[in-house]
Amino acid sequence: MSGGRERASAFAPASVGNVAIGFDILGFAIGAIGDTITVSRRGSPGVEIRGISGVVVDISHEARDNTAGRALLAMAEAVRPDFGFVVEIEKGIPLGSGLGGSAASAVGAVVAANALLERPCAPLELLSFAMAGEAVASGGRHVDNIAPSLFGGLVLTVGIDHPRVKQIPVPPEIRAVVVHPHMFLATAKARAILKREVNLSDFVWQTANLAGFISGCYTSDLDMIRASLEDVVIEPQRQALIPGFQDVRRGALEAGALGCSISGAGPSMFAWTTAASAPAVQAAMQREFARQSLKTDAWSFEVGGQGARVLP
Amino acid sequence: MSGGRERASAFAPASVGNVAIGFDILGFAIGAIGDTITVSRRGSPGVEIRGISGVVVDISHEARDNTAGRALLAMAEAVRPDFGFVVEIEKGIPLGSGLGGSAASAVGAVVAANALLERPCAPLELLSFAMAGEAVASGGRHVDNIAPSLFGGLVLTVGIDHPRVKQIPVPPEIRAVVVHPHMFLATAKARAILKREVNLSDFVWQTANLAGFISGCYTSDLDMIRASLEDVVIEPQRQALIPGFQDVRRGALEAGALGCSISGAGPSMFAWTTAASAPAVQAAMQREFARQSLKTDAWSFEVGGQGARVLP
Repeated sequence: MSGGRERASAFAPASVGNVAIGFDILGFAIGAIGDTITVSRRGSPGVEIRGISGVVVDISHEARDNTAGRALLAMAEAVRPDFGFVVEIEKGIPLGSGLGGSAASAVGAVVAANALLERPCAPLELLSFAMAGEAVASGGRHVDNIAPSLFGGLVLTVGIDHPRVKQIPVPPEIRAVVVHPHMFLATAKARAILKREVNLSDFVWQTANLAGFISGCYTSDLDMIRASLEDVVIEPQRQALIPGFQDVRRGALEAGALGCSISGAGPSMFAWTTAASAPAVQAAMQREFARQSLKTDAWSFEVGGQGARVLP
Repeated sequence: MSGGRERASAFAPASVGNVAIGFDILGFAIGAIGDTITVSRRGSPGVEIRGISGVVVDISHEARDNTAGRALLAMAEAVRPDFGFVVEIEKGIPLGSGLGGSAASAVGAVVAANALLERPCAPLELLSFAMAGEAVASGGRHVDNIAPSLFGGLVLTVGIDHPRVKQIPVPPEIRAVVVHPHMFLATAKARAILKREVNLSDFVWQTANLAGFISGCYTSDLDMIRASLEDVVIEPQRQALIPGFQDVRRGALEAGALGCSISGAGPSMFAWTTAASAPAVQAAMQREFARQSLKTDAWSFEVGGQGARVLP
């Protein structure tokens, strides 16, 4: 990214947070959809949201109540540029979909604004600014959508105050299938229903699955990924919020998916599968949502694409 | 291993269970000490414990109350050989040390007995038999000591009924330091004090550390290993059982350790460090135990040695 521009637009992809076994720490980017944020300089300091367009328009124009705006306020406070930011937001990601839309807006904003700075910030600084922005939407600082939207691919983030980011390799034969049913589910609601405690034996089971999944990714061990891509802690608590959840999951697994769970806080769902089974898995998941009278969008893709980037 | 022998001896190494962030699922072998189990055929079926020698002698001679005996009973029930097993146990691992002694006896027994069979069992079958044996000591089926004693190195086990085992590569510059203070701590007591629930935010923190640690091992990322080798769930509950725990841990970290925690249920403690810092880390840990008037044994070694094996 060349610094010192007057105006820059950045595309930031949607993402699947949690990935079944990595609640609040793991996510992967969905390159096919995302938010596009345009940031321009203005003479006076501060952040102004000038326009909101696309699939979502009813979000706050007040900078501190807007994820993109809040991220830029955090950036401005750290960097103290001698100019202000004017922001135009083009939402490609539906609100309340579980596809990391608020994270993408925050990420897109800081990546675009970074192109305006004479001395651009480092990626981990951008991550922190975007986390501050995403907190507007989720009520807390989370990185599981921010990090994949910023870096692309499957991303693990360790730590909140001093985050360390790790891009995890995904076996090349893997395809992700993501299905978005046309309904709204508030992230805050999906968080509020979670118990504050995890049973110790579920804790052991879930940690085994997480470690097995990470290990399976590094070693292209599809059998291990299949055995371990199962959420025994969060999914049982949230599945009732998604009409047809059990049928969608069963349909995906019967069609050959290695695993199937909730994308972020839902209602979107994702599956991992081999390339050969991806069409059947996607069709099964869409069919089961249709039986709930829910229209869907769906994507099948290789995990490992680009993260957010300044548009030419 | 050649099958059909009349008599075989097997050495099974001690091990560090849990490894701070992998409670009940992760462990690594300590090649320097272990139990040696000799199994001979006898005409009549069944399992007889004929001799117990070494650093522990006051364990049951009753096969079903002895970890080696119980493991062989499980094996005999599955394999149904037309002969029985006579067992001599030479304990090299102190009881109640947190060094996986009961697991090693169970593993050594099944590896030795396997050499007597015309059609030897597969490694995962041996794992299951040994788990049945280790349950005598711990009151439940656990694999975090069994798997490293059987396979060697750093081992992750996913699942109990159908366990999948993964040997995790350890960066070659890493040394493990293990310090055993001369006191007895009953595993059952160390398990009984654990709360049955884990706070959700601690769950997220610990899972991030586990994933970071595994990822750091696969990528030789010592900074990530240092950041993530920290147990925020189990260690806070158990540390009061170990005199001087905080001082030993602080001493290790100040001497350059990447992390330091309890070995299994304790009281032994382990650290991971670079080869260059290993002598200072070991000295610091031994010094702090000495200030508690505890004598110690200590080992520094590369993680990744052999697992259990039939002796020539």
